[in-house]
Amino acid sequence: MNLTATARGTFAIAPTPFHDDGRIDETSIDRMSDFYVESGCTGLTILGMMGEAQKLDADETRLVTERIVRRIGSTIPVVVGVSSPGFAAMRSLARLSMDVGAAGVMIAPPSTLKTDDQIVSYFAQATEAIGSDVPWVLQDFPLALNVVMTPDVIRRIVGASPACVMLKHEDWPGLEKITKLRSFESEGTMRRLSILTGNGGLFLDFEMERGADGAMTGYAFPELLTDVVTLSAEGKKDEAHDLFDAHLPLIRYEQQPGAGLAVRKHVLKLRGVLASDAQRKPATSASPIARKEIAYLLDRVAQKDKRVAQAAGAAKGAVA
Amino acid sequence: MNLTATARGTFAIAPTPFHDDGRIDETSIDRMSDFYVESGCTGLTILGMMGEAQKLDADETRLVTERIVRRIGSTIPVVVGVSSPGFAAMRSLARLSMDVGAAGVMIAPPSTLKTDDQIVSYFAQATEAIGSDVPWVLQDFPLALNVVMTPDVIRRIVGASPACVMLKHEDWPGLEKITKLRSFESEGTMRRLSILTGNGGLFLDFEMERGADGAMTGYAFPELLTDVVTLSAEGKKDEAHDLFDAHLPLIRYEQQPGAGLAVRKHVLKLRGVLASDAQRKPATSASPIARKEIAYLLDRVAQKDKRVAQAAGAAKGAVA
Amino acid sequence: MNLTATARGTFAIAPTPFHDDGRIDETSIDRMSDFYVESGCTGLTILGMMGEAQKLDADETRLVTERIVRRIGSTIPVVVGVSSPGFAAMRSLARLSMDVGAAGVMIAPPSTLKTDDQIVSYFAQATEAIGSDVPWVLQDFPLALNVVMTPDVIRRIVGASPACVMLKHEDWPGLEKITKLRSFESEGTMRRLSILTGNGGLFLDFEMERGADGAMTGYAFPELLTDVVTLSAEGKKDEAHDLFDAHLPLIRYEQQPGAGLAVRKHVLKLRGVLASDAQRKPATSASPIARKEIAYLLDRVAQKDKRVAQAAGAAKGAVA
Amino acid sequence: MNLTATARGTFAIAPTPFHDDGRIDETSIDRMSDFYVESGCTGLTILGMMGEAQKLDADETRLVTERIVRRIGSTIPVVVGVSSPGFAAMRSLARLSMDVGAAGVMIAPPSTLKTDDQIVSYFAQATEAIGSDVPWVLQDFPLALNVVMTPDVIRRIVGASPACVMLKHEDWPGLEKITKLRSFESEGTMRRLSILTGNGGLFLDFEMERGADGAMTGYAFPELLTDVVTLSAEGKKDEAHDLFDAHLPLIRYEQQPGAGLAVRKHVLKLRGVLASDAQRKPATSASPIARKEIAYLLDRVAQKDKRVAQAAGAAKGAVA
Repeated sequence: MNLTATARGTFAIAPTPFHDDGRIDETSIDRMSDFYVESGCTGLTILGMMGEAQKLDADETRLVTERIVRRIGSTIPVVVGVSSPGFAAMRSLARLSMDVGAAGVMIAPPSTLKTDDQIVSYFAQATEAIGSDVPWVLQDFPLALNVVMTPDVIRRIVGASPACVMLKHEDWPGLEKITKLRSFESEGTMRRLSILTGNGGLFLDFEMERGADGAMTGYAFPELLTDVVTLSAEGKKDEAHDLFDAHLPLIRYEQQPGAGLAVRKHVLKLRGVLASDAQRKPATSASPIARKEIAYLLDRVAQKDKRVAQAAGAAKGAVA
Repeated sequence: MNLTATARGTFAIAPTPFHDDGRIDETSIDRMSDFYVESGCTGLTILGMMGEAQKLDADETRLVTERIVRRIGSTIPVVVGVSSPGFAAMRSLARLSMDVGAAGVMIAPPSTLKTDDQIVSYFAQATEAIGSDVPWVLQDFPLALNVVMTPDVIRRIVGASPACVMLKHEDWPGLEKITKLRSFESEGTMRRLSILTGNGGLFLDFEMERGADGAMTGYAFPELLTDVVTLSAEGKKDEAHDLFDAHLPLIRYEQQPGAGLAVRKHVLKLRGVLASDAQRKPATSASPIARKEIAYLLDRVAQKDKRVAQAAGAAKGAVA
Repeated sequence: MNLTATARGTFAIAPTPFHDDGRIDETSIDRMSDFYVESGCTGLTILGMMGEAQKLDADETRLVTERIVRRIGSTIPVVVGVSSPGFAAMRSLARLSMDVGAAGVMIAPPSTLKTDDQIVSYFAQATEAIGSDVPWVLQDFPLALNVVMTPDVIRRIVGASPACVMLKHEDWPGLEKITKLRSFESEGTMRRLSILTGNGGLFLDFEMERGADGAMTGYAFPELLTDVVTLSAEGKKDEAHDLFDAHLPLIRYEQQPGAGLAVRKHVLKLRGVLASDAQRKPATSASPIARKEIAYLLDRVAQKDKRVAQAAGAAKGAVA
Repeated sequence: MNLTATARGTFAIAPTPFHDDGRIDETSIDRMSDFYVESGCTGLTILGMMGEAQKLDADETRLVTERIVRRIGSTIPVVVGVSSPGFAAMRSLARLSMDVGAAGVMIAPPSTLKTDDQIVSYFAQATEAIGSDVPWVLQDFPLALNVVMTPDVIRRIVGASPACVMLKHEDWPGLEKITKLRSFESEGTMRRLSILTGNGGLFLDFEMERGADGAMTGYAFPELLTDVVTLSAEGKKDEAHDLFDAHLPLIRYEQQPGAGLAVRKHVLKLRGVLASDAQRKPATSASPIARKEIAYLLDRVAQKDKRVAQAAGAAKGAVA
């Protein structure tokens, strides 16, 4: 099941579950994988930046990839983040991922790239490295990566690499960029690309209306993402916004650079998905005050979306 | 009326009004100044980054400063952004500002600063340049300025400069920073500082609960900021969150780096505050699609806060 | 005398002379201006980064510009650095400069520019701001400005602005860039541009051979620059290298980011050009050990270039 | 043979030899290893930035490390660069290196570090990751890594980690930093550290006089480095400078960011050390014009240092 440019829906960004002592937690990996499928996700992305991919060594990376892909890779497509400091390591992980059944890989540009030509050239070399048969996702995340790709640069990258089938869009601001890319398609100067959006979902409501195909982000309630994507795709605009707005205070709270992963893992633990919210070093964690704030937010969201009630209850118990 | 560390409430960040052809619009300056006073703002900050300060020449800077300070400077304190590439220009503007009646000035660090010592040293030299009698606000905005100040560095700056009486806090994430700074005060290692928060108000609800004294930001509905600050200060937590959440979708939409100023000026024009939403080059503007999105958001917010109804109606008419 | 694309030779980058207490030293300004003319410079560039331009306020900037241009502007062309945070200030200084008789202005890109299009657009707006009748120099200095311009981007800028007549080339590495730009000219895709090189002269020997028209930098012995440029232009390759290599240990020593200006001003003081080597804050200075190192270097260079003997003697006396 | 703070002399930075097709060239690895020993190097550093370490996958990294350490690790200490995006990979490589007989490892800070505390904390965590029994070298290279460490930060790092025994000093400017660090030692606030300097050797002459213990850099004539270090250590100042200055034009030419590695590998190929000067992508290469410039420089240096004559002859033949 290879990734294609027709992909739609919600690809959750999965964290990597650890035990409190930092060992990889395989039981939680299994439970989490099932959870995303059951939440209506149409795909899963592992070993991205929020998956603490850089903190694993080569053997661990292989273990996590194999375990998740083998468990759910025949149910929904699994995309593996293969960004690496060099092309040899990128190639090794990409080939391994495809061998065990991944649907594609995701590549982010290194922050050393400056000019348009450097960016285009980098992805041409990356494609050559991983092999032209591996479908891949272009990650566009200037806030974190400090690489700014204009719509024209994205078009050049896509034009040079038939295997680039998807854009993980998380430029900020990014709404006009979606509109521009879709106009390239409609004017016939760029082939169709699946566009899934990130940034924790902070602009998902309008991103869908601008032409996104769905979300690729890790908000701890993927059900919200799948619902907003579906409602929006069905043209139920007001309903999509109503539901989105109900979660927005928490989405916003989770979308704090660095600190956000601690919130996300904390909520997934409250939900029973992860056994521990531990991160490997360098780690962030939710302070006692932050946990109270999360509990308060969960309680408020639960008043509008009853699927949040369990987590709200668990949070209330935990901070009591 | 000099700025002191006891300042509270909402200091609006004022844009600079231009005519469509780029000339400064003095009539809008007057109307806008009155508007902020009438909206309940307890202070006004002019010539900040969102005030396009860098786009004015020396004569224009003087004109804007004098006009605003003379109009409302005896009613509410006016803070003037004096960040400059060099200390001579900073001093000139600071002295001028105080001479015409400003309450204080605001200084942001240049993005060339790297180490803790460089940051501390810079502000010591800045204080020396403007004169020790000028109260000043420390702007902490890593996302835009690329200078990261730890709480300890802020404490060192404050310790070295008695005239530093306020922190414009817009680190992101920033909640723990407020808590840390207040703990410095309670443990007696840092004197009291007024902390007003920025970032478009995106975290104002919790920032108040962490110990902020108010907001210093430019959201196009300052009434919302003043209300949230007041409700929170009065301990009406749920009411503060209810009101805040009603505006959050729009606050979030306005808080887009670069693009946000176009949204803000557009809404202020809809509100009748500005005659034009023009920016000087390099400029951003709200696209026709964006204006429809803003109209949609205003309409939704107006359903919960009737003070938004006029703007919502104007927006609906404009995109029809 | 307007700057044109046929400019050749050495345009010295002038420091700004201050008294020890930080006031502008007008007597040294006059002496320094004459010194550069007498040293064989074919032009002079003032208020560049090494001229501490940012540390002057508007009145001082005007004073320095007028004084230098009026003294020597009819003898050799004077270029005024007008880089500013905004276009209004840039325009004011550019018009003033041309009014008092400058030959052209120099513009560096702000470090916020990221993409090719942003860079090209910035210079189009800058040209519009200063007026199409003002000849200007494009400063390409990625190490200090963090803006990387490919040869193609430079071609686009030049193509869009007929008044761009010169490139201050200080990319590092930069030799291939000169070759590429000259190939654009010979293939007819870019009109002729005067290329003067910076970086303290560290690669001047080979830059000339690659096609540069001369130097635009501030090495404290401009005679060396003018000689190397002349010898190279005359095809006396070995002689050019011999002379260059004799000075290289000192050129290298002066070419230390930040610290270099202290070396330069110290040597110019030893030469009797400046009355003081003071910088305005934030300032660097040559430590006692550094001054001994400079004395040692001057002594060694003087053994090969007797024009250095006076400075070497003065240095020896000063550290004794 | 574990690395200690008494290390002196020249630790060459080794490139990684590839065949023209990008495969690792084991024959050249052996020859190169012997070459460095025969050139008088007192140590060897492999898999640094100029060793294209990031371009190897895990298996290749192991191969290169084992092969070099086993060949010469009992003759001179071998230091292995273990900088990694995460601590797990860093630990794996550090343990492997020590297991096969390396003398220590080298760690550079990631460019994401901003504040003093972040830097200190990072190295504390790195030390914990690799194990307190592994001697390590702190790499201080702001130009390439964009992390600025003050002398005080280095002192804090050294104080927190007894296994930090050496500083690879390549700040620029960096002379005052060496003086400051040595003053910390003499005043008793920091224990003794071996300081070896980088930057291609561009300031080696004065760095030795400031208190450096030697060089750690990759100039293609390590004999020059070992001689300058020895002469300087023996107090033969003028002789050290005479020899250094003879090579300076070429040292300067090799010290071009990015392009320098192509020069270095090209010269090492001319010397018969490497069979190919190929780099893995993203690669730089010496253009035909650059090769002529190198030939010219070699010819000039050979007139003063006859050990360069062979390479000069080979270069002349190659460009004929």
